Amino acid sequence: MTYLDHAATTPMLPEAIAAYAEAAARVGNASSLHSSGRAARRLVEESRERIADRLGAAPSEVVFTGGGTEADNLALKGLFWGARDADPDRRVIVTTATEHHAVLDVVAWLRDHEGAEIEWLPVDEHGAVTAADMASTLERHEGRVAVASVMWANNEVGTINPVAAIAARCADGGVPAHSDAVQAIGSVPVDFGATALTALSLTGHKIGGPVGVGALLLRRDAACVPLSHGGGQEREIRSGTLDVAGTAAFAAAVTLAVDTAATEFERLAGLRDDLVARVRHAFPDVIYNGHSVDRLPGNAHFSFPGCEGDALLMLLDAAGVECATGSACSAGVAQPSHVLLAMGTRPAIARSSLRFSLGHTSTAADVDAVMAALPQAVERARAAGLS
Amino acid sequence: MTYLDHAATTPMLPEAIAAYAEAAARVGNASSLHSSGRAARRLVEESRERIADRLGAAPSEVVFTGGGTEADNLALKGLFWGARDADPDRRVIVTTATEHHAVLDVVAWLRDHEGAEIEWLPVDEHGAVTAADMASTLERHEGRVAVASVMWANNEVGTINPVAAIAARCADGGVPAHSDAVQAIGSVPVDFGATALTALSLTGHKIGGPVGVGALLLRRDAACVPLSHGGGQEREIRSGTLDVAGTAAFAAAVTLAVDTAATEFERLAGLRDDLVARVRHAFPDVIYNGHSVDRLPGNAHFSFPGCEGDALLMLLDAAGVECATGSACSAGVAQPSHVLLAMGTRPAIARSSLRFSLGHTSTAADVDAVMAALPQAVERARAAGLS
Repeated sequence: MTYLDHAATTPMLPEAIAAYAEAAARVGNASSLHSSGRAARRLVEESRERIADRLGAAPSEVVFTGGGTEADNLALKGLFWGARDADPDRRVIVTTATEHHAVLDVVAWLRDHEGAEIEWLPVDEHGAVTAADMASTLERHEGRVAVASVMWANNEVGTINPVAAIAARCADGGVPAHSDAVQAIGSVPVDFGATALTALSLTGHKIGGPVGVGALLLRRDAACVPLSHGGGQEREIRSGTLDVAGTAAFAAAVTLAVDTAATEFERLAGLRDDLVARVRHAFPDVIYNGHSVDRLPGNAHFSFPGCEGDALLMLLDAAGVECATGSACSAGVAQPSHVLLAMGTRPAIARSSLRFSLGHTSTAADVDAVMAALPQAVERARAAGLS
Repeated sequence: MTYLDHAATTPMLPEAIAAYAEAAARVGNASSLHSSGRAARRLVEESRERIADRLGAAPSEVVFTGGGTEADNLALKGLFWGARDADPDRRVIVTTATEHHAVLDVVAWLRDHEGAEIEWLPVDEHGAVTAADMASTLERHEGRVAVASVMWANNEVGTINPVAAIAARCADGGVPAHSDAVQAIGSVPVDFGATALTALSLTGHKIGGPVGVGALLLRRDAACVPLSHGGGQEREIRSGTLDVAGTAAFAAAVTLAVDTAATEFERLAGLRDDLVARVRHAFPDVIYNGHSVDRLPGNAHFSFPGCEGDALLMLLDAAGVECATGSACSAGVAQPSHVLLAMGTRPAIARSSLRFSLGHTSTAADVDAVMAALPQAVERARAAGLS
């Protein structure tokens, strides 16, 4: 089986599984006062310190969550409410149409239920936004913007946004900036403290850690309204019993992902470039979506004109090659990708798309396997045509 | 080390760790369409079916969450908003002062931010509420109650509420009823479908499963507004990538906990009764809190007049016995337990309290260890007095 869907989820690293199993065999609620509780707390705080260290954050800026979706919900709703509570005029959210649904659906809910206004930044044909557009948008809505959110790297086409520059413009305008960096961590350098970001989302299962464990990096001075209430864990921002084993596994994954990011970038970009060159050579009419340079090293995203992406996916799956048509969180939804539409792609072309995403288990043999299976799959999908 | 704080968290069962490790070694996002994704989905749905089967629910009534706190937040806020959206007059929440903070802090937030009114049910000296009080309260606020919430069993003193009868009164009054059954599952029979409950919270780590995985059992016809937005997983009620390994481990724990509940009840109640008899014999002035019969089998909760509970806890910890003064989620808070105060306990007595909670690893040797360490601890704590 050739697994090329690492952007949806990537296998847990052996080091993360070991860290989980070791911690899970012990006992202790990190809020308990006895020896086991204090040992559990130490393990959580060591995990927090390791994650903070690798991402340029202070340990107190790491708020553990149940994953990336919760981190995005907390950042967007929490910062929106925080800003609006301080100043009722601040109800504009600036974001992009290429965000993950964990951002898009949150801002839509804030618009429909909480009186937010959404201002969409212009997206270029590669899926990128610019700091200049952020600056002019903030200027146009001066004093009215509650929060801005721009993803670090797109989950479908892999395009990397100039987040540091964008965050700097937000800081100039006195607006808290959030970035969903779920796809960026471990692929490109992410240094929270070196940016003017107020908040940054990450999750375990995209980098070899567990599902259901993530974090929001959140500046201490951020006005962020909590979404979950209860025991008051995580600076009263996120209640719920701390997942000691999960955070240990998450820390192991962040550590390894960041420490190997530079070499993995080279290795994966090499495999990916080989895949792209061979696909373009085999299918002269293929469209390679996303930015040619500013993109995630493991991402190769194509449109095969005349083919239905879902049909291609199933034909490749039958041939032992697993990939995606877009975000797993939108899988099964018979609509063209909102990311491609935002980039100006025509719906028929958008529906003919396929994403191959490489990760820590990927090898040259995987690229060979794609090239062995793809010609017949494309031929059959083309014969079936677009529905 | 003698661990008698199972109500805070209990060690993961070997079967649950094995289920986690086996699933974590595989790969696949349960929302992906390829073979690995479909295999992951199958595992999640098998886990859902096992949990539903053991708790008298339909599989479609199991909504996976990140734990008990999230389940309580979702139930209370979701059902409150659902009722209020349908009828703006419905803004009363009926609950008890002995609930866990994951309920209390949520209803306080709904009161302070969302215009909810809280109606507290009377609590007797054991910490119990009655169905008759629920009925009269609902009658008094006819047409104005959005949601009612009564915990199945109290986490501090172990008292069991007549939840089935209470839920029946709520159904009579057309009010959705929720119960936090986090402490009850695996200790007493819980059959969701046999009650008129609309929603019920449970979590993995109190029954030998993982931390960070829980569920809300939720009737299909419930009007429940989602708290997290994104990929639309879990019937659009709870977005976020499904934790395949976590749900497999959770299902293993629920299965074992429910299948062994009857024998474990006998075994733990026997150990607990032995502990209670020996403590009462050794300390004639000790107060045994909670109900003598309608209580969790593993719960023994005492007040030692003249002692500071925190001092007792630390002295016992130094002697190798781990227990709690109350909820781990309130640990370190220098205030008398809200549960004991609601039961009418005087603050000085409340502050002298200690909870021993037994679980699946507990043995007669643990009871002996308590009795070996307790006399000196009580003597020293008494000498130090109440601060």
